[in-house]
Amino acid sequence: MDGNIVIAGLGLIGGSLAKGLSGRAGRRVLGIDKDPQVIRDAVACGAIEREASPEDLRDAEFLFLCLYPQADVDFMAEHAAEIGQQCIVTDTCGIKNYVCPALQKIAQQYGFTFVGGHPMAGKERSGFAASEAELFDGASYILVPCGAPQEAVERLQKLVLQIGFGTTVVTTPEHHDEMIAFTSQIPHVLACAYVMSPHCMEHRGCSAGSYRDVSRVARINETLWSELFLDNREALLKELDTLVENITAIRTAVDQNDVPALRELLRRGRERKEALGE
Amino acid sequence: MDGNIVIAGLGLIGGSLAKGLSGRAGRRVLGIDKDPQVIRDAVACGAIEREASPEDLRDAEFLFLCLYPQADVDFMAEHAAEIGQQCIVTDTCGIKNYVCPALQKIAQQYGFTFVGGHPMAGKERSGFAASEAELFDGASYILVPCGAPQEAVERLQKLVLQIGFGTTVVTTPEHHDEMIAFTSQIPHVLACAYVMSPHCMEHRGCSAGSYRDVSRVARINETLWSELFLDNREALLKELDTLVENITAIRTAVDQNDVPALRELLRRGRERKEALGE
Repeated sequence: MDGNIVIAGLGLIGGSLAKGLSGRAGRRVLGIDKDPQVIRDAVACGAIEREASPEDLRDAEFLFLCLYPQADVDFMAEHAAEIGQQCIVTDTCGIKNYVCPALQKIAQQYGFTFVGGHPMAGKERSGFAASEAELFDGASYILVPCGAPQEAVERLQKLVLQIGFGTTVVTTPEHHDEMIAFTSQIPHVLACAYVMSPHCMEHRGCSAGSYRDVSRVARINETLWSELFLDNREALLKELDTLVENITAIRTAVDQNDVPALRELLRRGRERKEALGE
Repeated sequence: MDGNIVIAGLGLIGGSLAKGLSGRAGRRVLGIDKDPQVIRDAVACGAIEREASPEDLRDAEFLFLCLYPQADVDFMAEHAAEIGQQCIVTDTCGIKNYVCPALQKIAQQYGFTFVGGHPMAGKERSGFAASEAELFDGASYILVPCGAPQEAVERLQKLVLQIGFGTTVVTTPEHHDEMIAFTSQIPHVLACAYVMSPHCMEHRGCSAGSYRDVSRVARINETLWSELFLDNREALLKELDTLVENITAIRTAVDQNDVPALRELLRRGRERKEALGE
């Protein structure tokens, strides 16, 4: 029989998982959030059945940590003794090199299972009010087993596919963080750097899809993303340097009125997208 | 009574205008394209009634130049003597500082009217096959009168609103090109520079909306965009320097583990988007 699922942190991700797990997977979901109003809202809309008690951590089949990275580690350190040995604990952090070993260590110490996870979806709003079961439709769920038994990884995998994720990918913390620096962190740096142009405030009427798409995630949660960037400092710096180098190559071709060089650089961009079938 | 409309160049933009003008505005549209197959396709789907002859240029109410920038100037220089004095000639180029004065000069010489224009829509495919009447729905049409009579500007304005554009904006070539460097050219440089990262080819499963949105326009037409970039060299270089400066500020904060500085930089991005109501 399916056990309860406890979700700690009912923000955009935790709230959306709660809605998917209760609504779509028909699981009994219990929630933890520092804001009592969020608990009331989550109960009112059926995302959770009620607030989780320490006993619920003892009996849970899954515990999803959906707080900020350091807060996930702090939560687990504080509640480790309450978590049952049958429980699969998983996080949803956007970085893994720092968080996964810390959580894995506590899990080993207390005898329960930890499997890292990262749902690859989000939007430019945060908080429970922005959460929705549809957020994950067709998205990828990255699983970072960190030595967890295959059976536990498969149970988590099965669960996330039930709530609308389209694929799961299994990788290491190191590879995860390198890829995330490129796929997610760079676009967030770019969006913020882009909208700082003096021309941004007067873009209306002179812009279209390109402006909209590059600037979208500039509506950032700066507390969360500062933590994510700094916890992935090395990989992010490397990607930033690659990016600035590639921008500079195009800048040089423009500056020198070098048509063949410019065409060649842009052609490489197009061929990448074509090779990817995008 | 509404006169004929001639469209020179039935690519993505010219083809979409033809479909909108004939289908939505119920105008008689005649086309010019160097590829006879495109003319046949455009006639077959009703986008144009037939290929335009030199006499059609004499009688047309509007002539839309939808070629590449230099090709627009060359076309007008070659056909200026055939264009009737009642005709409003307009271009659809993505840059205006170079093209508009050149076209305006020919118009003055031959006694017809020129009004610059730039439909703010596009997509990451080119050619007539990619064209669609819906491309412009709700988009902005930038009008660059260059001294044309108000009555001619208003007729063009009325026409584009009939085919689905949501707004029109009137500006100068200089302001247009400064804004376009920011709203359109920078995102295209960025997209190409971004996908050149060695991690790009393995992004699948580890990416979501941010990757998709920043990389989208890397599927670029490098011949057209090299011309657009170099015809707007000064404004583009200025925006590129601003962008790299802002990326570097964030890079420095990450490198120095400077939490307050990083939060402050990201906060500025968020506040920009909020101030714009986006």
